[in-house]
Amino acid sequence: MEIEVVAIGNEILAGITVNTNAAEIGHALFKEDYRVGRQTTLPDDFASLKQGLEESLQRNRVVITTGGLGPTCDDITRQVAAELFDSEFRYDEDVAQELKRRYGNYQISLENQATVPSKAILLKNEVGTAPGMVFSSSKSTLIMMPGIPREMRPMLANEAIPYILKHFPLEQRSVSRCVHFFGLSESAVDPELRLLQKKYPEVEFGIYPAGTLSIYASVKTSDEETGLAYLKPILKELTTHFSRHHYESLSGKIEEAVHNLFIKKGWTLSIAESCTGGSIASRLTKIPGASQYFLGSIVAYSNELKQKVLGVPEELIRIKGAVSEEVVAAMATGAISLTNSDYSIAVSGIAGPSGGTEQKPVGTVWIAIAKKEHTPHVRKFQMLGPREWIIERSVIAILGELLESSQGFQP
Amino acid sequence: MEIEVVAIGNEILAGITVNTNAAEIGHALFKEDYRVGRQTTLPDDFASLKQGLEESLQRNRVVITTGGLGPTCDDITRQVAAELFDSEFRYDEDVAQELKRRYGNYQISLENQATVPSKAILLKNEVGTAPGMVFSSSKSTLIMMPGIPREMRPMLANEAIPYILKHFPLEQRSVSRCVHFFGLSESAVDPELRLLQKKYPEVEFGIYPAGTLSIYASVKTSDEETGLAYLKPILKELTTHFSRHHYESLSGKIEEAVHNLFIKKGWTLSIAESCTGGSIASRLTKIPGASQYFLGSIVAYSNELKQKVLGVPEELIRIKGAVSEEVVAAMATGAISLTNSDYSIAVSGIAGPSGGTEQKPVGTVWIAIAKKEHTPHVRKFQMLGPREWIIERSVIAILGELLESSQGFQP
Repeated sequence: MEIEVVAIGNEILAGITVNTNAAEIGHALFKEDYRVGRQTTLPDDFASLKQGLEESLQRNRVVITTGGLGPTCDDITRQVAAELFDSEFRYDEDVAQELKRRYGNYQISLENQATVPSKAILLKNEVGTAPGMVFSSSKSTLIMMPGIPREMRPMLANEAIPYILKHFPLEQRSVSRCVHFFGLSESAVDPELRLLQKKYPEVEFGIYPAGTLSIYASVKTSDEETGLAYLKPILKELTTHFSRHHYESLSGKIEEAVHNLFIKKGWTLSIAESCTGGSIASRLTKIPGASQYFLGSIVAYSNELKQKVLGVPEELIRIKGAVSEEVVAAMATGAISLTNSDYSIAVSGIAGPSGGTEQKPVGTVWIAIAKKEHTPHVRKFQMLGPREWIIERSVIAILGELLESSQGFQP
Repeated sequence: MEIEVVAIGNEILAGITVNTNAAEIGHALFKEDYRVGRQTTLPDDFASLKQGLEESLQRNRVVITTGGLGPTCDDITRQVAAELFDSEFRYDEDVAQELKRRYGNYQISLENQATVPSKAILLKNEVGTAPGMVFSSSKSTLIMMPGIPREMRPMLANEAIPYILKHFPLEQRSVSRCVHFFGLSESAVDPELRLLQKKYPEVEFGIYPAGTLSIYASVKTSDEETGLAYLKPILKELTTHFSRHHYESLSGKIEEAVHNLFIKKGWTLSIAESCTGGSIASRLTKIPGASQYFLGSIVAYSNELKQKVLGVPEELIRIKGAVSEEVVAAMATGAISLTNSDYSIAVSGIAGPSGGTEQKPVGTVWIAIAKKEHTPHVRKFQMLGPREWIIERSVIAILGELLESSQGFQP
């Protein structure tokens, strides 16, 4: 079945907003074994929007749009959809009542928001003012959701996906699984994957680099168990071949692997961050339940804070420099002394674009992994690219190193 | 002139990768006064890709693609482009030499990467192995770049944009400006914007919500100064009307406004974070030069760390709870005592999804802004939505509050 996801909005075309909705919708469908065949972004302009949507509806069985449903003046999606499906408008008393209940009578855009195309089935908006809409013809179905992610997200999960599952059940399903790696490049995996593809031509493989590397394998079968039994040994070949780099994570995110490992083992973790500036802590604490193992992070941007809170000797910083093997080890040890955590990680580097020297160019990053009452493991990385990339790569590198070394400390 | 940006890759359609490239390309063109008319994502499948690209080339003067140029087995973009422009392949000795110089002779994909379509002009890849390519016919031009953002980014800035500026100079330019607000909803601004639109029908307005709110105004003119002189008083009406919420920022990001304010004033800042888990520090330190004013953040996830490092009295946490007016004020004061910074900000809240109570439901967030030797300003927010959204909104709320209150402390 052909599905297209269409985002509507000049702000997306102008790159002011990143289209995360398309990814969320694609992924929610992917998990239900549907495949999005195309993504499109169209402008807030009546003629272009109408023509673009018309093309999409001709190409696909289902078109899912986001954006253009709000009360603001550049929102014309509703009008376009009503024209495409030849629909009148009507004032919906239920929508109006719900808006009044939630926002009071003085809701400016009440009348606008409660006026909906007669031919549309309305989808509930749990958190915002604009309801979603579904239009159907014999040929295609148009599902329209708001563009604000926090409004789109619950509507997708609770309304749109169930609608698709009910009205467009799949005939042939496939079973797919993903395995994840850190510290591996696409080109390092490619030869191995080519061999596997030759050996198992009926399996669909894909490589998804995102700082970490996810490899996906899929096989057509209507039986989940059969598919899994078939895929397991194939993926096992990969994870064995690259075992040092492999981690397990449902979301694909490496921080989830750390989160699960620490909770499972009952360990606690503290962090001392310099160049990553809070990004390691921020990534870990986005996962609900992080407080079960995560005690805190000292983002010691200034040298004074490294000395005062983490107990790094002033002399050490003066002689070796803040970006050095010795200082990063002292930061990690200091974090354990401060928090009494079972493990700590520390990072100190030069994220740039300035601050580099010949001995320590931009991208020099020292990381340390410490276990209570053990000597820290220390390692140097030379990262490439702009500041944000160096920070991002450092976060992944240190979490990968933590996963690996936490198995390897001798008692 | 019609421009379309096309991303290629199943990982984008499946939502495993968020398409940030499209936003970066759109924004780079937007700043040069070009408008992207459409964004498309196509699968790694020869037939669909060929048909999709063919449609795009028919619709547009310029098509810019990202992805599918790498050495891995699902990369077929080059073949498709060669067919569309009826091109042979040739082995490029320069590309091969450059790859050898950079990676040595043992580069697995050397032969593949150095074999390029004869009709393509090559674009330099400063950081990766796959060169970009430009194909031209009398009707349209296809510019192809790699999908990995750190490879795409320099190629866009140094190769693709200059190519477009040179070969497709604009006849009529427009001048546009953006103003930014925090703590404002789209519906709050909408009535004001409708009035302005009536008053100035020749101006194109747009609202871009992204946690903060950016309002954009554009007017057609070939003279920058005339355009600015025209737009300035219009935007002034907006910033005056919503002055309490207005901030200045080139990137549109509120952290840039904080960054610039603190550096300009010569103030220093420290942070005590609980529920935001390092996200405030992480946002601020992504901007180069943050070390000029930012001393550090104590991500005090555990209560012990709040006591030990920030000096929050244990009793206060026991009686009032970690998420309380009193504790968040003590955290802010503690951060100043620890770092001797001029200002500090502190946040403590319940990001959920669990941990809420009837008195303190999920989304309860206390923030404090402190100035050295002054009583902290404290404020409570009730945030809606899932965990990530509560964290994100808290970061914006506290930075907005900091911008506002830093003007208002009495000596």
